Amino acid sequence: IPKSFVIPTKVRDKHSMSMFVTTDQLSLPPKYSDDETSPREKTQVNSKGSSDFCVKNIKQAEFGRREIEIAEQDMSALISLRKRAQGEKPLAGAKVVGCTHITAQTAVLIETLVALGAQCRWTACNIYSTQNEVAAALAESGVSVFAWKGESEDDFWWCIDRCVNVEGWQANMILDDGGDLTHWVYKKYPSVFKKVRGIVEESVTGVHRLYQLSKAGKLCVPAMNVNDSVTKQKFDNLYCCRESILDGLKRTTDVMFGGKQVVVCGYGEVGKGCCSALKALGAIVCVTEIDPICALQACMDGFKVVKLNEVVRQMDMVITCTGNKNVVTREHLDRMKNGCIVCNMGHSNTEIDVASLRTPELTWERVRSQVDHVIWPDGKRVILLAEGRLLNLSCSTVPSFVLSITATTQALALIELYNAPEGRYKQDVYLLPKKMDEYVASLHLPNFDAHLTELSDEQAKYMGLNKNGPFKPNYYRYDRCSKTTHHDFDYVQYTHFYCNVV
Amino acid sequence: IPKSFVIPTKVRDKHSMSMFVTTDQLSLPPKYSDDETSPREKTQVNSKGSSDFCVKNIKQAEFGRREIEIAEQDMSALISLRKRAQGEKPLAGAKVVGCTHITAQTAVLIETLVALGAQCRWTACNIYSTQNEVAAALAESGVSVFAWKGESEDDFWWCIDRCVNVEGWQANMILDDGGDLTHWVYKKYPSVFKKVRGIVEESVTGVHRLYQLSKAGKLCVPAMNVNDSVTKQKFDNLYCCRESILDGLKRTTDVMFGGKQVVVCGYGEVGKGCCSALKALGAIVCVTEIDPICALQACMDGFKVVKLNEVVRQMDMVITCTGNKNVVTREHLDRMKNGCIVCNMGHSNTEIDVASLRTPELTWERVRSQVDHVIWPDGKRVILLAEGRLLNLSCSTVPSFVLSITATTQALALIELYNAPEGRYKQDVYLLPKKMDEYVASLHLPNFDAHLTELSDEQAKYMGLNKNGPFKPNYYRYDRCSKTTHHDFDYVQYTHFYCNVV
Amino acid sequence: IPKSFVIPTKVRDKHSMSMFVTTDQLSLPPKYSDDETSPREKTQVNSKGSSDFCVKNIKQAEFGRREIEIAEQDMSALISLRKRAQGEKPLAGAKVVGCTHITAQTAVLIETLVALGAQCRWTACNIYSTQNEVAAALAESGVSVFAWKGESEDDFWWCIDRCVNVEGWQANMILDDGGDLTHWVYKKYPSVFKKVRGIVEESVTGVHRLYQLSKAGKLCVPAMNVNDSVTKQKFDNLYCCRESILDGLKRTTDVMFGGKQVVVCGYGEVGKGCCSALKALGAIVCVTEIDPICALQACMDGFKVVKLNEVVRQMDMVITCTGNKNVVTREHLDRMKNGCIVCNMGHSNTEIDVASLRTPELTWERVRSQVDHVIWPDGKRVILLAEGRLLNLSCSTVPSFVLSITATTQALALIELYNAPEGRYKQDVYLLPKKMDEYVASLHLPNFDAHLTELSDEQAKYMGLNKNGPFKPNYYRYDRCSKTTHHDFDYVQYTHFYCNVV
Amino acid sequence: IPKSFVIPTKVRDKHSMSMFVTTDQLSLPPKYSDDETSPREKTQVNSKGSSDFCVKNIKQAEFGRREIEIAEQDMSALISLRKRAQGEKPLAGAKVVGCTHITAQTAVLIETLVALGAQCRWTACNIYSTQNEVAAALAESGVSVFAWKGESEDDFWWCIDRCVNVEGWQANMILDDGGDLTHWVYKKYPSVFKKVRGIVEESVTGVHRLYQLSKAGKLCVPAMNVNDSVTKQKFDNLYCCRESILDGLKRTTDVMFGGKQVVVCGYGEVGKGCCSALKALGAIVCVTEIDPICALQACMDGFKVVKLNEVVRQMDMVITCTGNKNVVTREHLDRMKNGCIVCNMGHSNTEIDVASLRTPELTWERVRSQVDHVIWPDGKRVILLAEGRLLNLSCSTVPSFVLSITATTQALALIELYNAPEGRYKQDVYLLPKKMDEYVASLHLPNFDAHLTELSDEQAKYMGLNKNGPFKPNYYRYDRCSKTTHHDFDYVQYTHFYCNVV
Repeated sequence: IPKSFVIPTKVRDKHSMSMFVTTDQLSLPPKYSDDETSPREKTQVNSKGSSDFCVKNIKQAEFGRREIEIAEQDMSALISLRKRAQGEKPLAGAKVVGCTHITAQTAVLIETLVALGAQCRWTACNIYSTQNEVAAALAESGVSVFAWKGESEDDFWWCIDRCVNVEGWQANMILDDGGDLTHWVYKKYPSVFKKVRGIVEESVTGVHRLYQLSKAGKLCVPAMNVNDSVTKQKFDNLYCCRESILDGLKRTTDVMFGGKQVVVCGYGEVGKGCCSALKALGAIVCVTEIDPICALQACMDGFKVVKLNEVVRQMDMVITCTGNKNVVTREHLDRMKNGCIVCNMGHSNTEIDVASLRTPELTWERVRSQVDHVIWPDGKRVILLAEGRLLNLSCSTVPSFVLSITATTQALALIELYNAPEGRYKQDVYLLPKKMDEYVASLHLPNFDAHLTELSDEQAKYMGLNKNGPFKPNYYRYDRCSKTTHHDFDYVQYTHFYCNVV
Repeated sequence: IPKSFVIPTKVRDKHSMSMFVTTDQLSLPPKYSDDETSPREKTQVNSKGSSDFCVKNIKQAEFGRREIEIAEQDMSALISLRKRAQGEKPLAGAKVVGCTHITAQTAVLIETLVALGAQCRWTACNIYSTQNEVAAALAESGVSVFAWKGESEDDFWWCIDRCVNVEGWQANMILDDGGDLTHWVYKKYPSVFKKVRGIVEESVTGVHRLYQLSKAGKLCVPAMNVNDSVTKQKFDNLYCCRESILDGLKRTTDVMFGGKQVVVCGYGEVGKGCCSALKALGAIVCVTEIDPICALQACMDGFKVVKLNEVVRQMDMVITCTGNKNVVTREHLDRMKNGCIVCNMGHSNTEIDVASLRTPELTWERVRSQVDHVIWPDGKRVILLAEGRLLNLSCSTVPSFVLSITATTQALALIELYNAPEGRYKQDVYLLPKKMDEYVASLHLPNFDAHLTELSDEQAKYMGLNKNGPFKPNYYRYDRCSKTTHHDFDYVQYTHFYCNVV
Repeated sequence: IPKSFVIPTKVRDKHSMSMFVTTDQLSLPPKYSDDETSPREKTQVNSKGSSDFCVKNIKQAEFGRREIEIAEQDMSALISLRKRAQGEKPLAGAKVVGCTHITAQTAVLIETLVALGAQCRWTACNIYSTQNEVAAALAESGVSVFAWKGESEDDFWWCIDRCVNVEGWQANMILDDGGDLTHWVYKKYPSVFKKVRGIVEESVTGVHRLYQLSKAGKLCVPAMNVNDSVTKQKFDNLYCCRESILDGLKRTTDVMFGGKQVVVCGYGEVGKGCCSALKALGAIVCVTEIDPICALQACMDGFKVVKLNEVVRQMDMVITCTGNKNVVTREHLDRMKNGCIVCNMGHSNTEIDVASLRTPELTWERVRSQVDHVIWPDGKRVILLAEGRLLNLSCSTVPSFVLSITATTQALALIELYNAPEGRYKQDVYLLPKKMDEYVASLHLPNFDAHLTELSDEQAKYMGLNKNGPFKPNYYRYDRCSKTTHHDFDYVQYTHFYCNVV
Repeated sequence: IPKSFVIPTKVRDKHSMSMFVTTDQLSLPPKYSDDETSPREKTQVNSKGSSDFCVKNIKQAEFGRREIEIAEQDMSALISLRKRAQGEKPLAGAKVVGCTHITAQTAVLIETLVALGAQCRWTACNIYSTQNEVAAALAESGVSVFAWKGESEDDFWWCIDRCVNVEGWQANMILDDGGDLTHWVYKKYPSVFKKVRGIVEESVTGVHRLYQLSKAGKLCVPAMNVNDSVTKQKFDNLYCCRESILDGLKRTTDVMFGGKQVVVCGYGEVGKGCCSALKALGAIVCVTEIDPICALQACMDGFKVVKLNEVVRQMDMVITCTGNKNVVTREHLDRMKNGCIVCNMGHSNTEIDVASLRTPELTWERVRSQVDHVIWPDGKRVILLAEGRLLNLSCSTVPSFVLSITATTQALALIELYNAPEGRYKQDVYLLPKKMDEYVASLHLPNFDAHLTELSDEQAKYMGLNKNGPFKPNYYRYDRCSKTTHHDFDYVQYTHFYCNVV
């Protein structure tokens, strides 16, 4: 394993990890007990006689198939894309290697790609997140999948290699979540890498690595950053957090929200979602901000803007979502009142200085999974959730609807890159064209029985718009920009729009 | 066991049951495995040498004590009452037999009664709800407690009898939840019953049984109905349901609320709570009502008032909270769309006609604890939660804060009845005096750092009020009246209704 | 004029006065200039040759008719009652004397009574509030109306007398707003009074006077208190104030609500309406309360409960709605910051100690109608609205929809009293039967296209309800009780309060 | 007058016009009667002996001064800028010609520029909007102002010319609102134009004209587009409309919002503001959209997305805010129910096809200023507000706070352009640097008593940000882009930030 490009597990980012927390990890007991033999040591054959896969137990395929079918019900946008596009098979000839969490929802994506004409080989981007029964169902249906729950680090790279390194089959598209697969191909199979038509990357981390490659002049393939699409960002941040802040707090602490005094650090999209939900349920919410524009928005939305040290003594809950580090310090923690709940909704685990609590005079008491009481010498307890890691990653689930948006975006990005005429995309990292973003949104509207109005010819002309969109300029972006995207700006250069599929 | 007055388990009501769902039932694995010997067959002695109790395992006392201490943190109103009143010992001489769920929160109540001077003997009102380690801690501290998790029906009555039937100790106060203890004393120990100074009853069912006794002229003891206090009702219904509807739906289905079309049947306090929360999180909510006043309120609050059959085909969720029966019929269920979630927030399990779904052409699939997919021949799935039983009983928890309100009310009612001068209370069922209700509320205000304004002498005179309250007349009541409380109706002067024009 | 029973103008209450503020007073210029001759000195004849009326100018009838027609559009419930009941003429034989504000909305009521069979004679309850053109239209259509805008005190009583004192016509029903007509009849025409079948009284003041008569044993006629009906109260207080607080503030000050710090004194129905609206528009709202139950509700609804002197220095607005006196004192006013807006939404003008501001060191500057800047020696300005009188009386309008509810209730109360069988009502003051209250609500549901669900026979039986209602017991009441309604208190069984522990 | 570049009055845009509607136009009677002599024919001298101005009546100066002082109270950000920067006089040497609405708020801006060192000559951008007493006060204090209410077209250009065409004084900065002044200088005084250091333009129309000049290669001066700053846009659209939709509807129709069925056409920032406010006050709101991303946001925010023709028959109100034309057609109007209110919140008067209502079979009845009943042959009335022009322009006021944001932005833009080092700005149109936008926001935070958090050095480094901002990249923009700004994109080219003043 080439250590040089291994990303430490703890750096894996929120959006990437969000797929990891699936139903059964959180609240259900394991469905059956697996045997302990490593899958690498077993020989398994699916019902069609193929053994070009490596999963925990091919016999779980039927159970996994039911899980996939249930997921399909909540991913109607992807199914609808599958139906619309399968006649023309826009991915005919595409040979896709993929590296993502392997869950029922991903399986719906993979099987959509197959329905559109692609051949797929797949591996897991995380050693814990694979749903074994789903992997089995994929293997049974003919996808070459190499993944199981509880891989070792060595297993991890072995699986990636088995995806890429095949006699007589050469990948021409990469779908990645975190960048490990991309870098493996880049380093180990440079000749394959050069012939790849496009890379679709889902995670902040992976996008960051692609930009680094690009800056170093080594990115010889066009890549699509789907992490920063408007639709995905709004759902991952504003709408999803609006619900998961409540869910995460309830599942861990059973706290009543009504009348609670809460400070939310940071009023970007995540903070806006948290504040809106907590206020709606009767909490009294104030906000800290560094940015005067966000601070003014907080004021106008009815939240008092304060400094943390002014209010920390009165608070019942302290929630961070700044993207920054050491926002809650030991000094703040020392001043909190008994029973104060502290948690983080931001995308790294740096916001609360948890390390500062590992001192001899404080006692840690694990009262529940993901819930620690940190006890001061005078008996004061501070309730720390998920040890300062992202709360909704650790303590709530992600609705299939959100995963559907991500998966649909990935599928469209693959179609676009695979079908783009020569020259549309150069060897660079691209944001999702606005028209594709709008198309993803439109595929999800039927879930809400929403009826879109169409422009008349006269109206389109008056507005200077194409009747089919895009309706927003490419620079239209979500509200608060993450660290990484500050540097992205230079890459916004193209004016071509997505127009094949729609 | 005198079968004649046994209440079937399935009739036990919401408020009574709400204490039943404690942390460990819902989300935590059992903490250790108990041995299988029946407690009745064991001889156990606490550290002071007493064996006047019967619990699962006295050795769990230390663990139970920690649970009690944690509960105390969230029940500061009760602790504050304990501190304020323990000097004067208002319950000195009181001999209280109690029959409630035995949880950490109840333990805080019992130990408060003891601190105020009472002697207590206690048993469980439900065969499943006892926290064994808490019972052990109570036994260790000297309370004669007879209860364990998983009693048989025979055990249940044996425990009750052991509480009451003691040499040289005669109960003079009863604290009951459901009426089983009261009726046991009434039937089996009529001479004890006659000398009881007062009964405090917590549940709808128990209150109903008391009114029946009273009507039959057989209630020779004043009784206090604490179920219908304003504070308790507002919390049990409006505020608690506002949170638990979200919690119950998330824990069972992980559904995203944003954009979902929901119909809430019934716009009483429970319905108001559900509607408010769902609307706040972006659901599109409509309401059904039979009562034009509630319907007009729904309109003014921004909810379209519809008939169920007009909208059922488009809904993503159907939630009942009418208190009525067969509100959702098989016909409605047949017309629901694929994936529709159906659940009940009302206080009995009659609202959804679940029995009608037990027909051969429908397949039931249990996908998770408390979650069934009912599958129609064409593949349509309706997602039924908790088999139509109260959702927040089955699928969410009750915050300690709500339990604190109940327990404080019970303690005050005991003090009032025990200390009331001759003649204040006759042999009847009383509602909680408004002043006590206000006092319970005031004890909980410090939790919110709320500062009450005091009337000046001049202002009190102007308003015709006592400076210390009560501030509301006794007829002030919560919004929607349950079936039972219709009995108070007779106290209102006239009973003729308007009937000519309509 | 028998001075003894004249109510000083300043005591006239909110609900009574609310009809006073009609469109043209507030924002429209006078439509034409009236001549200055007193109507009492003119002889006017309508087109049918009658001169049994006294209005400003019968020639304005056509213009008034149009105003009435426009009002009819917003009062569809009353029109619908008119249509439903005019076949059976439930008021045939009724001779109604009425004393209310005379506006287009009242005219719709009067003409409804006529359509139902009544003969009506009418006068104004306020010397300023008559819409002259509407009075003319009524006179033209044959109603004997005696009222004009700008009556003298002497005119006022002359008009009342002209209504009652007629050859060959003796009133048998009274519809009053404020009690002046009732007392005139009681004092001057005792023989008429004794034969009256019923009195319908609309205002707090009038109801209070009726209770006094009743207590003194002098009320020989059944009276209906329509002021305290649930429907009317909810609309007059919660729903109407939710809108009029915003409207009143905007029209007077053009203030932006977003981010403003506001304290609302009192969390009854009026306070709840104000808080809800201001919070929704982005204000940061806190609350003062004397009643712990209301205070706890404020907490759970997300409002910090404070004492006024703790926060007054930071506030941008101070709004009173307590029903109490001297809630905002000179001391508070001295501590307000520059630009603070102070106003009253409660039902009397006692809440802000305006008199304390009439001192030499303070300068008053009238900057707009209803808006005074009170200027401190250091230049600080406090913005006082409507000199502390009810803001929505003075500075906003009342929607016809609310007036429709009041008028429909009055009409139904008249029908009920006129048709009630012997013995149903004794010589006492009655609250509106719940069924009538529900009927008023149901007549207004079509405005919202609301579809009420009907109980099945089985459901009605299960609930112990009649299928047509009433659905609520008679003791069901609105949230916060006004001073007057404390008198009902005696009807509740016990009067002893809890007082030991507190 | 060179007709070629005269903008027809009806094209003047929303933002420009918003200043026009000031208090006295809307709700106050004229304060005194002016004489009829044209100001151009009078000779007036101020108290210092100067007559270099032309206003209605210099004697009104004292009254105007008070109006300015009151405005200052609400524009504390501008006053604070005045105080911070007046020591260094950053506009020393600047000779500013300005053409804006002349109101008390503008006067605060002008006097701020003077305090910072500028010499100012000023004229009105609209023939009706001048507050004569304010113009008098400015003239009295030494500003050469040429403006009065009710100018003729000829007066308008004469005043502009008098500003520019002065012996011995040559403008070097232009502050414009609509572009008329800019074009007058450009056409008539090209040699002056070439030496101007910068133009600050406030309106959409003016910005559009500048881009046209720039495209034609004729813009020889750097220009700053302050219309599109984030802070201004958020306030002009989202926050301001959230309040003015309610205000405009109430002042014109006194409608009750609770329970009303409303369709809002367009879910950009304006639509979001309208929907949020109406929903909060109990209306039942649905939305039409052409853009799937906005439509999905509407869904997630809880608004049903529909086509107008599907719902128009049931609606109580129809509100347009699309920026498009003929969104509400005659066909829609024909299908509306009796009493439906129709109005426009979008920035042009094209959205409702009002012309289609000017047909013989329909009767128009003006029932109030800005309110027409359009009556169909069957008696159906549709209530049309402001004849389809922008509702909040015509029927409500703009809070001084919003005007303060605009004025502060204009002042900062002038300072920046005047002080920018050679080469920072080329001959092009620039968006406001993000740092300046943030600075405007920060100057307004004290109004809300908001306390901004500062980054520590360590945190700034971690985030890759300067401690003093900017915190957002330059491409950060408001949500919905107007037509014009679609074309602007190409002009975003610079990376220099504002750094002198802060």
